[in-house]
Amino acid sequence: MSKLPNVTTSIFTVMSKMAAEHNAINLSQGFPNFPVDERLTDILAKLSKENVHQYTPMAGYPPLLNQIAKLVQSSYNRKINPDLELLVTAGATQGIFTTILALVKTGDEVIILDPSYDSYESPVLLCNAKPIRIALHDDYTPNWETIEKACSSKTKMIILNNPHNPTGKILTEADFVQLKNLLEKYPDLLVLSDEVYEYITFEEKHISAHTKDFLLNRCIMVSSFGKSFHITGWKIGYTVAPEYLMKEIKKVHQFLVFSVNSISQVAISQYLDVVDVNRLGEFYQEKRDYFQKLLQNSRLELKPCEGTYFQVASYANISDDDDVTFCKKLITDHGVAAIPISTFYSDHKDQKLIRFCFAKDNFTLETAAKKICEI
Amino acid sequence: MSKLPNVTTSIFTVMSKMAAEHNAINLSQGFPNFPVDERLTDILAKLSKENVHQYTPMAGYPPLLNQIAKLVQSSYNRKINPDLELLVTAGATQGIFTTILALVKTGDEVIILDPSYDSYESPVLLCNAKPIRIALHDDYTPNWETIEKACSSKTKMIILNNPHNPTGKILTEADFVQLKNLLEKYPDLLVLSDEVYEYITFEEKHISAHTKDFLLNRCIMVSSFGKSFHITGWKIGYTVAPEYLMKEIKKVHQFLVFSVNSISQVAISQYLDVVDVNRLGEFYQEKRDYFQKLLQNSRLELKPCEGTYFQVASYANISDDDDVTFCKKLITDHGVAAIPISTFYSDHKDQKLIRFCFAKDNFTLETAAKKICEI
Ligand SMILES: CSCCC(=O)C(=O)O
Ligand SMILES: CSCCC(=O)C(=O)O
Repeated sequence: MSKLPNVTTSIFTVMSKMAAEHNAINLSQGFPNFPVDERLTDILAKLSKENVHQYTPMAGYPPLLNQIAKLVQSSYNRKINPDLELLVTAGATQGIFTTILALVKTGDEVIILDPSYDSYESPVLLCNAKPIRIALHDDYTPNWETIEKACSSKTKMIILNNPHNPTGKILTEADFVQLKNLLEKYPDLLVLSDEVYEYITFEEKHISAHTKDFLLNRCIMVSSFGKSFHITGWKIGYTVAPEYLMKEIKKVHQFLVFSVNSISQVAISQYLDVVDVNRLGEFYQEKRDYFQKLLQNSRLELKPCEGTYFQVASYANISDDDDVTFCKKLITDHGVAAIPISTFYSDHKDQKLIRFCFAKDNFTLETAAKKICEI
Repeated sequence: MSKLPNVTTSIFTVMSKMAAEHNAINLSQGFPNFPVDERLTDILAKLSKENVHQYTPMAGYPPLLNQIAKLVQSSYNRKINPDLELLVTAGATQGIFTTILALVKTGDEVIILDPSYDSYESPVLLCNAKPIRIALHDDYTPNWETIEKACSSKTKMIILNNPHNPTGKILTEADFVQLKNLLEKYPDLLVLSDEVYEYITFEEKHISAHTKDFLLNRCIMVSSFGKSFHITGWKIGYTVAPEYLMKEIKKVHQFLVFSVNSISQVAISQYLDVVDVNRLGEFYQEKRDYFQKLLQNSRLELKPCEGTYFQVASYANISDDDDVTFCKKLITDHGVAAIPISTFYSDHKDQKLIRFCFAKDNFTLETAAKKICEI
């Protein structure tokens, strides 16, 4: 018997593969298609010939740990100890998996909002723990009332994703007030805050878990350079946690991977000296606005997008197909790949919604939009 | 309560750190200190400027999967299906962890030989399963009698490491006969074969699990380019398993890391076109012989070394210190770092044995040997 009987091929794999087979424009899986900053690839090329090819220390290349601590400080005015509260991981995915495996035990319950990115549930199941899915409100804000009702002494962790994939929603001050109330009632409850899109927000900046004092001692924050530096293939992320939790996370990390790709760590540590992450929001806001403008005459109804590089759209006025069927036809009949939103729901609820990734060069967005406008 | 209460800082971290602090020659943690093949770093530098910075497919970069299948075929005359039986991992460590997590369940027992590399026990514990440590014979061959006595219907897996870290021992044909008998008696028993030093063998080549028909349908084989190409920092390894097991391993991999460092995968796939892995044994045999010669007048007694880049030595005639104390003094008093063998034993049995890594340039070996000869 499988330990993950319900896991099938990831929708991101299915759609990217189908897009390639049909020579469709791939706006499904979230990755940029424009070139990486030359300053970063220059650093990488130069480092290739240097002595950077053996194991880094287990928790990360020390100058990178220091740079990340500086980044967190300058972004959120939070001081973290790079030796005790920080871990470099093989992407945010490994940070999430390692955190859950280290902290969640048999019989524990973990609250996961619905819809959610697909990375949270399987590690919980592998711990013999129980994922409790709680539906977001229709506007994709958390329903704190049902969350609180679902909590008990068994609840070990609540997983938040802020900004939220796939909906682009960011949490408000009011959400944090509710979270604070909840945590006061459940003093052993931990928060896993997946903030991989932390620098990709638009009109409003997101409120990071780093900025909330009540979270400092009970929150694990996960992020990724893949999203921030357009290098999803590098698989370099990081996890921040208070020392008593980080100690446990590092124990699992040691045996799960020991250390992560050395040259990438050195390159990112040098790049952090010259790059300004705060311009990323602006960069993607332009892309979002351009993509929305290109689609203004399409028959799709575009949803609001506060952050991430994903645009959700409704085709309810166009077709009765379920969203998986609609996405497949979008590839075969129109040459554009998207992700059906039903795959982010535990019950695969079809709401005639699909997700486009707009982390693409303008020519790709224009060509895709033209095809989408023909639907 | 910790899920891994007995895990402390890895001996490899402790010793490498202490070596650095005391400016000692680091023959402890296993990594090469000579430059990487220029052909490989040239490929890497060139690729830095190409379009190789986004996610590869989940199971690996397809040309690399094909190259690994070719490598297995040419090395062992075993045909594997690169799409169904192969996975590229973030080092062998991740391959081992992922395999155990995918296949071992609550209450299962897993046989781990004693002494063993430290990567096997923690993932078993994280599965709520039970590691059963079985002592090797004094000559470091497996004791098949006690292994068989330890087996029952609960035994899910036996983990073999061939060539063996830290002792350098390789399994014989007689061992495989015994293994075959055992597997016939326990038809559900799986074998995890850690062969990361597969290309580092000397007078005799090791017998890979790939070459044994009786293993093909129930063995998971793990290896690593870190050891074979002197790039321990790259963290690129691979796992081979029959389709029905690989399906489960990939499910865990998808959520554990999703995919691994892209540029490293592309670089290795191109390097595999030009490199001859079969010359690696010769290369390290020269190092072993040279290191042994340099130590022939030392007071240490050198043990046989059939494979790996580790030399075990006894100091029983020199000191009554336990091996951890001896290694610490070796750093502080003589400026050379080694690994105490007791750390590979479940009960930390002190046998006055230490392990040197000889994957070092000749100057380093000479300088270290001079210091060791002064003991
Ligand atoms: C790891 S594949 C999925 C990439 C991603 O973050 C997304 O498309 O949502
Ligand atoms: C991952 S650190 C340990 C390296 C190694 O394989 C060894 O020294 O045995």
